Amino acid sequence: MTRDTPNDPLKSLKFGADGLIPAIAQNAASGEVLMVAWMNAEALARTIETGEAHYWSRSRKKLWHKGEESGNVQKIKEIRTDCDKDVLLLKVEQIGGAACHTGFRSCFSWVLRKDEWAEDGVKVFEPEEKYGRK
Amino acid sequence: MTRDTPNDPLKSLKFGADGLIPAIAQNAASGEVLMVAWMNAEALARTIETGEAHYWSRSRKKLWHKGEESGNVQKIKEIRTDCDKDVLLLKVEQIGGAACHTGFRSCFSWVLRKDEWAEDGVKVFEPEEKYGRK
Repeated sequence: MTRDTPNDPLKSLKFGADGLIPAIAQNAASGEVLMVAWMNAEALARTIETGEAHYWSRSRKKLWHKGEESGNVQKIKEIRTDCDKDVLLLKVEQIGGAACHTGFRSCFSWVLRKDEWAEDGVKVFEPEEKYGRK
Repeated sequence: MTRDTPNDPLKSLKFGADGLIPAIAQNAASGEVLMVAWMNAEALARTIETGEAHYWSRSRKKLWHKGEESGNVQKIKEIRTDCDKDVLLLKVEQIGGAACHTGFRSCFSWVLRKDEWAEDGVKVFEPEEKYGRK
């Protein structure tokens, strides 16, 4: 069994020059890939501490507790990393059923068919109803 | 159904400033996440054209036909993208059973257990036997 420095597994991770590491969220039960977001060290520490996924929002430049607005939090079942230790894989229970702000169960709801990206996903909610019309 | 510019779905993807987009390879049959690598436009075009995953190797700075050395190519079953169109998800058949150069079925063979990354994966081959001792 491979062991890292005791008590500090986060130090062996390779965060990018911007201090971020990509994290894939996968439905722990079905295996469906739900989304990819970014974490800094603080987001990962909070994720471990609270058992709910926290990311770093690159657009809003702030810590983002996934589901803080929609209620669709992600309960952490397992945290994995790869051979290069530069990507994280979170196995989660997706509360509310939908990971995507568009209302789809997964953010990966577009499939390449010949010469176009065709919408192909399971709609769990209508964004207008959930977040209100703006 | 959402439609992009006909005949040019690749143009709607958001490649990073470095010309790269992350691509997750997932076992199409089992749902296991196998690896994450990067693609430039050429790698994606070759992937579509040949039906086998091609990536951009950031360490070797060259186009990388996955499995070119090991024989463990990835046959493309489906190519998906997310709501931001800045990540790709490839559903693949992993020839040889192992995606990882370490011999594990998946690169994500380390799991966070208390204060360490514990090895936790299915070993398909021994790297020393496959690539030869160096």
